[in-house]
Amino acid sequence: MSATLYGVGVGPGDPELLTLKAVKVLAAVPVIAYVAPRVDGEVDGKVAPSLARAIAAPHLQGAKTEITIAIAMREDPGSGQLEYDRAAAVIADHLAAGRDVAMLCEGDPLLYGSFMYVLERLRGDHKIITVPGVSALSAAAAQAGVAMVSRRQSLMLVPATLDEGPLEAKIKIADAIAVFKVGRHLDKVRRVLGRLGRDGDAIYIENASLADAKVTALSDAPGAAPYFSMVLVPAPSGDSE
Amino acid sequence: MSATLYGVGVGPGDPELLTLKAVKVLAAVPVIAYVAPRVDGEVDGKVAPSLARAIAAPHLQGAKTEITIAIAMREDPGSGQLEYDRAAAVIADHLAAGRDVAMLCEGDPLLYGSFMYVLERLRGDHKIITVPGVSALSAAAAQAGVAMVSRRQSLMLVPATLDEGPLEAKIKIADAIAVFKVGRHLDKVRRVLGRLGRDGDAIYIENASLADAKVTALSDAPGAAPYFSMVLVPAPSGDSE
Repeated sequence: MSATLYGVGVGPGDPELLTLKAVKVLAAVPVIAYVAPRVDGEVDGKVAPSLARAIAAPHLQGAKTEITIAIAMREDPGSGQLEYDRAAAVIADHLAAGRDVAMLCEGDPLLYGSFMYVLERLRGDHKIITVPGVSALSAAAAQAGVAMVSRRQSLMLVPATLDEGPLEAKIKIADAIAVFKVGRHLDKVRRVLGRLGRDGDAIYIENASLADAKVTALSDAPGAAPYFSMVLVPAPSGDSE
Repeated sequence: MSATLYGVGVGPGDPELLTLKAVKVLAAVPVIAYVAPRVDGEVDGKVAPSLARAIAAPHLQGAKTEITIAIAMREDPGSGQLEYDRAAAVIADHLAAGRDVAMLCEGDPLLYGSFMYVLERLRGDHKIITVPGVSALSAAAAQAGVAMVSRRQSLMLVPATLDEGPLEAKIKIADAIAVFKVGRHLDKVRRVLGRLGRDGDAIYIENASLADAKVTALSDAPGAAPYFSMVLVPAPSGDSE
């Protein structure tokens, strides 16, 4: 009885961007877990399809027990704690019974990944292995074909959900900037980058690595951005010091 | 005649951390290119083995033309420009002759990757596709099993090669910190993190994803760190605001 919990990064969306290791783990485990967005206002826990599961779907083999973690996609920091408590308990039961569990995460599990909430609840008590994945950041940069950082340059990753002041303070000193979770915060991101004089080279990317990916200059970005959109500001070219 | 240049991220070291897409591209292309470290002081261009090629080796099929880009692994920003000029010209010749070329990069091609120097020389004139890879950052976090950033937290990526003042200024405001290319700069990194009160949770990682990977508290790190070592400071836990 020494079952393992795997945190598996399934990458940014393209099922070909799974790693060989992720494919191997997905084929072998009897139990998978993943977050699915809870439809707002539904009391009975009705959920929308899980993006992580959809990415992994071509690689799931045989019968699996599936654990759906229904999370309301709200921005308040406390949201979902009860659901993660429950999921961690269910996962712990499977592990105790000797069944390996893979928790699927879009992108990389340890960079803004939902796996972290399960990890913090189960660490110490179980064998846990993280299988790193291609991050949303790498996918967005690849989609735009833009060199982000080289040599002695720095890169700040920051969520657009921060308030305007803290957002500006965090990115002011970085050579390159990656703003996550842009969604309805697009105007704020535009204002902050404008004040810093960094909006000129800023690129807007949505659905990186997918067939309906979109890349535009930030100035041409649509009024309504989806939650999984990103704004990248590459380090100034030639600024290799 | 519409050949494609692929910038292929081969991941952090474990050949199982290649993506399915990378494996497919490596199997198909007739020409591969990669950086290999030039042995210092050798005039005849003798090179050490390429790490990127070694990672990709299990996935190379059939006869390939190979382009070795011999680069002295020095820290002066101008180093290697001539070699990249030459390599870009050779790659352009293959593309013009209708032969696809894959340039292999450790980790992700657009995050401190050597592919960027070829990209900036050939962009606009050729069809170029970046295949994103698992970054050294994701591999290091997975090796340490440590949650880096969640929710409204920020993460700064910075090379240890910066001078002490700029290094401190860049990382001061970030919730989480990833210091790349630690090598002989380990003492400086330790001093800076100590002054900022961030050394307590700092983790030292070398050879992430490889059989000889090493993870220790920064305070227990060895005196001599290899070039491809990293120091991670996770965002404070519970600091989900």
